Amino acid sequence: MQKFSIHKALEVLEQTPDTLNSFLKDLSDNWIFFNEGEETWSPFDVVGHLIHGEKTDWIQRLNKILFEDDKHFLPFDRFAQFENSKGKSLQDLLHEFTILREENIALVKSLNLSENDLEKKGIHPEFGEVTAKQLLATWVTHDLGHISQIARVMAKQYKKEVGPWTAYISILKT
Amino acid sequence: MQKFSIHKALEVLEQTPDTLNSFLKDLSDNWIFFNEGEETWSPFDVVGHLIHGEKTDWIQRLNKILFEDDKHFLPFDRFAQFENSKGKSLQDLLHEFTILREENIALVKSLNLSENDLEKKGIHPEFGEVTAKQLLATWVTHDLGHISQIARVMAKQYKKEVGPWTAYISILKT
Repeated sequence: MQKFSIHKALEVLEQTPDTLNSFLKDLSDNWIFFNEGEETWSPFDVVGHLIHGEKTDWIQRLNKILFEDDKHFLPFDRFAQFENSKGKSLQDLLHEFTILREENIALVKSLNLSENDLEKKGIHPEFGEVTAKQLLATWVTHDLGHISQIARVMAKQYKKEVGPWTAYISILKT
Repeated sequence: MQKFSIHKALEVLEQTPDTLNSFLKDLSDNWIFFNEGEETWSPFDVVGHLIHGEKTDWIQRLNKILFEDDKHFLPFDRFAQFENSKGKSLQDLLHEFTILREENIALVKSLNLSENDLEKKGIHPEFGEVTAKQLLATWVTHDLGHISQIARVMAKQYKKEVGPWTAYISILKT
């Protein structure tokens, strides 16, 4: 495991829009709009969810920790994307996510966060006190979790088609 | 789930080099060379493993099914990358994978596989008879499984740093 570093965290946050673009931009609707079953998300839904995080979650919570008197985070709406993505194409969403992420990274960089800033605290609706560092580390792992999810959702489309190889492709068993 | 289609399978196989490039090319060694613990693979190891598959596995097995008298597949060496990647940089490996994958896709396209071709069979060392279609579907899910793995391996670097958020980031629990 590695220690949190703002520089290395930003490396991961910066690659996500390009990675999702490369991953998804040329795929047919079959890959983009299918999910893993009832109440699960398609790759399209996941990109919408990431957009909502850029708009309402990570930076807003960081601002609360650093600059606001009321340190209580607002709860995050995990289903907002179903409304917000309506009528949009995947290209629209990828573009929107790319712009928002660029703005948010520029903002984080402009803060020149010190070690002291990273230890400052906000209040999570469930967990209670959390630090700026934990919030930023979570942002990184949240991106990675959703990249992993998209790959899994797509792989499962071929769960039957691989035949006996399901034994070796562990992603199909989850 | 979707039915296998050679056209849609190729869409996924074609994006993998670009996706891995976007995902990994600008990351520090900390992200690239760390694994999940003993006998697990780093992102660097995974790219080496994908190269070995392009060189010795997918196309060779497809050729056996379609063109050779002896239909028995050779076993795949899952540890060859540790030798083959020695002394190379991640950039070297990404470049090598990109070239090999392009060649292999061009080759598959040149075969103009018919439905009849896709049902032709080879003999897997463990599973016995498998079809060309199952082999190609497995190639697709194998890519996706390793993209997912790379994201997971990286996320776990911050398992401790996210603090209480481990409760929400399910990729950290696997």
